[in-house]
Amino acid sequence: MTVEYNELDGLSRPTSSRKRHSGCGLAVVTLILFVVTGISALVVWKVCFPSGGFGGVFVDNGALAHHYPPPPPHTEYAAVARYIIHISDWATLATISTHANITGYPFANVFSISDGITSNSTGNPYFYLTDLELSVHDLKADPRASLTASLAQSSYCRQRRLDPQDPVCAHVILTGEIVKIKNGTAEAAAAQQALFSRHPEMQDWPQDHGWFVARLAIRHIYLLDYFGGAKVIDPQDYYAAQPF
Amino acid sequence: MTVEYNELDGLSRPTSSRKRHSGCGLAVVTLILFVVTGISALVVWKVCFPSGGFGGVFVDNGALAHHYPPPPPHTEYAAVARYIIHISDWATLATISTHANITGYPFANVFSISDGITSNSTGNPYFYLTDLELSVHDLKADPRASLTASLAQSSYCRQRRLDPQDPVCAHVILTGEIVKIKNGTAEAAAAQQALFSRHPEMQDWPQDHGWFVARLAIRHIYLLDYFGGAKVIDPQDYYAAQPF
Repeated sequence: MTVEYNELDGLSRPTSSRKRHSGCGLAVVTLILFVVTGISALVVWKVCFPSGGFGGVFVDNGALAHHYPPPPPHTEYAAVARYIIHISDWATLATISTHANITGYPFANVFSISDGITSNSTGNPYFYLTDLELSVHDLKADPRASLTASLAQSSYCRQRRLDPQDPVCAHVILTGEIVKIKNGTAEAAAAQQALFSRHPEMQDWPQDHGWFVARLAIRHIYLLDYFGGAKVIDPQDYYAAQPF
Repeated sequence: MTVEYNELDGLSRPTSSRKRHSGCGLAVVTLILFVVTGISALVVWKVCFPSGGFGGVFVDNGALAHHYPPPPPHTEYAAVARYIIHISDWATLATISTHANITGYPFANVFSISDGITSNSTGNPYFYLTDLELSVHDLKADPRASLTASLAQSSYCRQRRLDPQDPVCAHVILTGEIVKIKNGTAEAAAAQQALFSRHPEMQDWPQDHGWFVARLAIRHIYLLDYFGGAKVIDPQDYYAAQPF
């Protein structure tokens, strides 16, 4: 060892300096590559799956991020409908407009929803509403409404490179009436917990806005899932199913 | 040097092996950290911004991913509305239902849209439709419709941890009539280019479905952007504005 170092350092320097400590250099490079690869993989993993694990669906609603098991098989229509509603932190609500210049027109609007805490799906999409809200103006005149949510809102379609209008990027359409839930009831407490758990900032929204909890009472369900046209799902089957 | 190595290797080994090659070790550790940090930053950058650059908004519609400049200041209402429609690859359309058991109800449904190729916003949300589609059944009876798109569909709200119902996570509601665009016209060609450029799989959709291009003829615009309630935007101002 000693002689070898002396030779390399002073007496018989190789033509290429890269060969100088070739054994040690290779080990260091290998070590660096190993560490870099490992940490890079970890970083990518944590960025892509902040809640851990492959094989599931990742939802980032802005306020919170969640990781869910993969969706049910596409032929389990009721379960797929429940799955999409459960993992969706927001959805679009259609009402009949009462607003100037568009009275009687359909009216699409975005709302944060929750059908339960992430580990408990009820199938009931709950809303946190105020009489000041545009769609609530409509609902006071006509409670009929329709709600749609899509797997395009999660990592599901993105990872599979599915266009949002591709039938394999499933979406569900619930239609019925919006029902205001009476304060002080068990359902109001559970609904508020469901909403606040997935939308923590709701607790800090202006106190003078008169927020209340509401639910879509589901009359009709369409599932756009896979090819062959929309599937109609009986609400009873929907409630009997489990998302996972 | 020689003596030092000999001493360390055999005669006067230090109590901590970490001190053995302290100068060299520190340099290697520093080098590894430098490389690891650099590569990790690059990986995170590429994962978060596949199309490059901070300060903008990233949209991943599943089929394609795009990076856009940041939104206009929130007080430039018309420009913000144009921005949200331009960067949105999909949106939710409300119609008046003609379907069994929910006839006359509002009806919410998801569609892929494009108001132009990514570098050219027209402000006109274009659709690729077929008479087989549920909402098109409705539109044939009543062309009135409303379309909503939200910054919650992009990286904008996610990166700022904004709840989708937070007014700072802006969304726009366009209401009007859906107009079928005649094949062979310049508008049909441009609309098809706008749609296919952002939804390449549309070109491969079943030929026997009778796809056609349609546009929402905008009558009324609400922008939910920042606090203080919805802003009504004159369609003329909307068309005169530029998203960036």
